[in-house]
Amino acid sequence: MEQVLAVDIGGTKFAAGLVGADGSLTNRHQVPTPAGGDAETLFDALRSVVAAVLTEADPASPPVALGVGSAGPMTAGGETISPLNIAGWRGFPVRARLAELTGLPVYVDNDCKALALGEGWQGAAVGCSDFVAMVVSTGVGGGIVLDGRLLDGAGGNAGHIGHIVVVPDGFPLPGHIPGVLEAEASGTAIAAKTGRPAQGATADVIAETGRLVGRAVGSVANLLDLRLAVVAGSVALGFGEPFFAAAQAECDDIARLEYSKGTRIVPALLGGEGPLVGAGAVAWRALGHDIGIR
Amino acid sequence: MEQVLAVDIGGTKFAAGLVGADGSLTNRHQVPTPAGGDAETLFDALRSVVAAVLTEADPASPPVALGVGSAGPMTAGGETISPLNIAGWRGFPVRARLAELTGLPVYVDNDCKALALGEGWQGAAVGCSDFVAMVVSTGVGGGIVLDGRLLDGAGGNAGHIGHIVVVPDGFPLPGHIPGVLEAEASGTAIAAKTGRPAQGATADVIAETGRLVGRAVGSVANLLDLRLAVVAGSVALGFGEPFFAAAQAECDDIARLEYSKGTRIVPALLGGEGPLVGAGAVAWRALGHDIGIR
Repeated sequence: MEQVLAVDIGGTKFAAGLVGADGSLTNRHQVPTPAGGDAETLFDALRSVVAAVLTEADPASPPVALGVGSAGPMTAGGETISPLNIAGWRGFPVRARLAELTGLPVYVDNDCKALALGEGWQGAAVGCSDFVAMVVSTGVGGGIVLDGRLLDGAGGNAGHIGHIVVVPDGFPLPGHIPGVLEAEASGTAIAAKTGRPAQGATADVIAETGRLVGRAVGSVANLLDLRLAVVAGSVALGFGEPFFAAAQAECDDIARLEYSKGTRIVPALLGGEGPLVGAGAVAWRALGHDIGIR
Repeated sequence: MEQVLAVDIGGTKFAAGLVGADGSLTNRHQVPTPAGGDAETLFDALRSVVAAVLTEADPASPPVALGVGSAGPMTAGGETISPLNIAGWRGFPVRARLAELTGLPVYVDNDCKALALGEGWQGAAVGCSDFVAMVVSTGVGGGIVLDGRLLDGAGGNAGHIGHIVVVPDGFPLPGHIPGVLEAEASGTAIAAKTGRPAQGATADVIAETGRLVGRAVGSVANLLDLRLAVVAGSVALGFGEPFFAAAQAECDDIARLEYSKGTRIVPALLGGEGPLVGAGAVAWRALGHDIGIR
């Protein structure tokens, strides 16, 4: 079976694996993101996980392409990346460097857009042509599929649900626009507001975080005529059922137009495999394989 | 030159005209929407404006299609319409009836999505592949073009910026979700909140209305990676410069990510011709003519 090489670039780890045309993920490897590393130290680490996977690949059927899901921001088409929490890469030409390293066609997209592709292809949004996928973790990000297409936007950043206002004149998290979802409901925001990490959040904080996520989802459901939000990320999944119940209740209060009522907020299904399956989806889609999303 | 017949269906008037492939609008006719009319009384009025236009059309070059921009809601593809402020039409099969009347292929879309097509084709968004067009009038509606395509959403209602939350726990306008833009910034909301019509609004009300519109636009710019909002509608255009200045200032406060900073809020350019040029754009686009938006 043909496979693509999938690469996940994040602030805490680099991961790679092989993803088949059926969505199967194998030969997974990962390394911690070198803390404080310069551009070449970082690339050496990335090279090591890529090499580990390629060594294991069937020589008779090497990967046909390489898909990358990366923390942003990035320039159009992922030509260069400047991940917020990987300080050593600013304008790093990741696409060209990985193409040079592997000789493969390389396709790069934002990690949250990759998540949307992955959940639409193999996860909680299979068969759905209109949904938002989001991550509630250290930050809050997202990707949107509408009319069966992944939305890009002018610079490739569409889907950034973490930057819509949910509390006007809200919490002034440094580096953030006050009152946007990420400044209120991210792990970083929760720690800044409560003085303790999200893992130690009280029931009130969990419920309030859920409400704010539900408010954002409700607004997006009304705006875009979609009825499904798939939520991943350590904060959301760590909070679990009380978070999802509060989010759903607030969403129900807002998404109650004829076309938006019944909007559901559900946990992502791919779990720890999500980033690599999503990165694989970036490549398979670019190759013209039918993943259910154009 | 080939032309299409354009029809605008609104709560105060029905209008029709001919729209050329160059966007030119001629032979415009209109009648007041029959107040309290039943379905056939309403259709008689619509038939009269359509007939007036067809009588004037060049017999050697009759219109090649019919485009409709209609107040919503409607079912997918505009097969049936149930405009909120035209009580006599509930599930009215407007597409089939107009096809039967004229023998033309008929294409129907939401009036705000038609406005977006018109402003993108001939108005304030020419050459722009990513923008929101909105109407701030009796209600607040909108249409979104992203990645060069008009967004439809699951049921064809995408773009409804009037239904995103801008003031949590906001004004409880009857029939509305509290705190959504339409419940705060529409002519109906202004009259309910202040006890006087929007035309008599104070400078404070005008500025606050602008701020709320700017907040919604800023959130949408961040969410969708677009940098242009085109605003039409009697309330916005009647308020004029102080409204637009307040909207722009608030938007500047919110749309200040790398990709969203510089987002502009500008008045629509097509003015009174907008609805019919937009309806014409619905037809020309459906026929495969290049209007700059897929």
